[in-house]
Amino acid sequence: MTTITHLEPVFRNDKYPSRVYDLPTLLERKDPVVYSEWREDAGLTKAQSEFYEKNGYLHLEGFFSPEEVVRLKAEMERFKALNETRNADEIVREPGGTDIRSIFAVHANNETFRDLSLHRKLQQIVTYLLGGEVYVHQSRVNFKPGFKGKEFYWHSDFETWHVEDGMPAMRALSCSIALDDNYHFNGPLMVVPGSHNTFVSCVGRTPDDHYKQSLRKQEYGVPDNDSLTKLVKDGGIDTPVGKAGSIVLFDCNIMHGSNSNITPYSRNNIFMVFNSVENRIGKPFGSQAPRPDYIAARS
Amino acid sequence: MTTITHLEPVFRNDKYPSRVYDLPTLLERKDPVVYSEWREDAGLTKAQSEFYEKNGYLHLEGFFSPEEVVRLKAEMERFKALNETRNADEIVREPGGTDIRSIFAVHANNETFRDLSLHRKLQQIVTYLLGGEVYVHQSRVNFKPGFKGKEFYWHSDFETWHVEDGMPAMRALSCSIALDDNYHFNGPLMVVPGSHNTFVSCVGRTPDDHYKQSLRKQEYGVPDNDSLTKLVKDGGIDTPVGKAGSIVLFDCNIMHGSNSNITPYSRNNIFMVFNSVENRIGKPFGSQAPRPDYIAARS
Repeated sequence: MTTITHLEPVFRNDKYPSRVYDLPTLLERKDPVVYSEWREDAGLTKAQSEFYEKNGYLHLEGFFSPEEVVRLKAEMERFKALNETRNADEIVREPGGTDIRSIFAVHANNETFRDLSLHRKLQQIVTYLLGGEVYVHQSRVNFKPGFKGKEFYWHSDFETWHVEDGMPAMRALSCSIALDDNYHFNGPLMVVPGSHNTFVSCVGRTPDDHYKQSLRKQEYGVPDNDSLTKLVKDGGIDTPVGKAGSIVLFDCNIMHGSNSNITPYSRNNIFMVFNSVENRIGKPFGSQAPRPDYIAARS
Repeated sequence: MTTITHLEPVFRNDKYPSRVYDLPTLLERKDPVVYSEWREDAGLTKAQSEFYEKNGYLHLEGFFSPEEVVRLKAEMERFKALNETRNADEIVREPGGTDIRSIFAVHANNETFRDLSLHRKLQQIVTYLLGGEVYVHQSRVNFKPGFKGKEFYWHSDFETWHVEDGMPAMRALSCSIALDDNYHFNGPLMVVPGSHNTFVSCVGRTPDDHYKQSLRKQEYGVPDNDSLTKLVKDGGIDTPVGKAGSIVLFDCNIMHGSNSNITPYSRNNIFMVFNSVENRIGKPFGSQAPRPDYIAARS
């Protein structure tokens, strides 16, 4: 693990090179976290804004009312039923089963979720944090049943969005809307406070070309143990859990993941990624072909 | 799911039949939880004893001093190194690797851990709870590294010990000794308070014999979702976490499990199962051959 603050000439056009070095490398963040000066109509208190800037995330309890939660859950179930037998890329099913696990691009294909992405208070906060007009980079509804919830390993979303989708800068954030009460034991989101200020450049090249060939895709973009240990040593781990209707906003570069969930408690949620219109995605910084529009909106 | 309180004649000799019915069945516990009247020299306060009786577990913070923890950790590492290249049944390695995950029967093969099993205060508590002399049914040291800790699905130990090892009654308990600080996010032990009073008879026969044939062994003895949901609805879930040196005592029939652990925090521990000498194991109640002595002591 090496901390470097300047880049080799070959990567001069890439502020955040990843999957290119032979060794894990920690880079300093080169973008703001909060893109506006705090103001009365920010949608957040000054303390909340400062918490987000320092820690890279913010938990807002009771953001949606119980009535709104009921309505959103009902629409989620209705939309799921509607798609039960439909065959489309944006519908992701359980491996080896037919149960729907996620439906992507709901902001584009469903009126309720389109309205949700334009929710006045949410827009107010997000445009404040990202400094102006935003659009939805990715959205999905997640059906996470109890008993068999799988873990989701540590990652920075931005690492993927940068390398695979061509997102230039750290000027995006995610909003996770809890539709079930969450507990510390049902596999909640874990974040490493403060980790959004460091970019973990993941190992992608090895001296041994054969080994590289044999790497499965999902092994790219995985942060190494030493980097994770350092980030957690510095910032600890938080699990911002709350009642249904609470939301967590988190910066695109915060290190996060979740453990498995064997409890009977499901963990359904709606997930929206907002990106600044000044930060539209382009050619991927990695060598892959761009991912489809329902995962990374280009239109 | 059916609650029955009497048994069919065919199982009259078995207080806790499991893996024999076609449907999951909940049976009432027929044995005491605490086998002694509380007394001044119980090793527990009356309140602690009552908590254990009601909930089926007890967390004791700071049971071992920091110095004792250091000594136990050192011995664990020493013993691990000693066994690194040894080939023996009681040494369990990571699947697909050579790293040692657990070493069984440490109370029989290592002086420090034999002494630990005879620890005065621990013996005082355990003999109080189980009503007289005890012996070690099973012991092991567990090396649970961070990043890749696997989940352990819900189970009652007694269900296994009864069916596979022939333990007659619920008169045993486990003691888990934490050698690392535990957190709610590093895959700690989860228990369902009060679940020790219900025996979940697991499904083992199906009308379809072919299907039974194809069941893999690890699918036996797994509690069903409806039973788990009922137990959790009644008792909730607790994660008794604490500093290194804390212990958790839990009844042989309490429903417990753990989620995965992707955090950098390891979760090394020592695990001892004490059984009453009045409750020595015999012929398994299931049809399998008895398991080896290092898993279930018969000598």
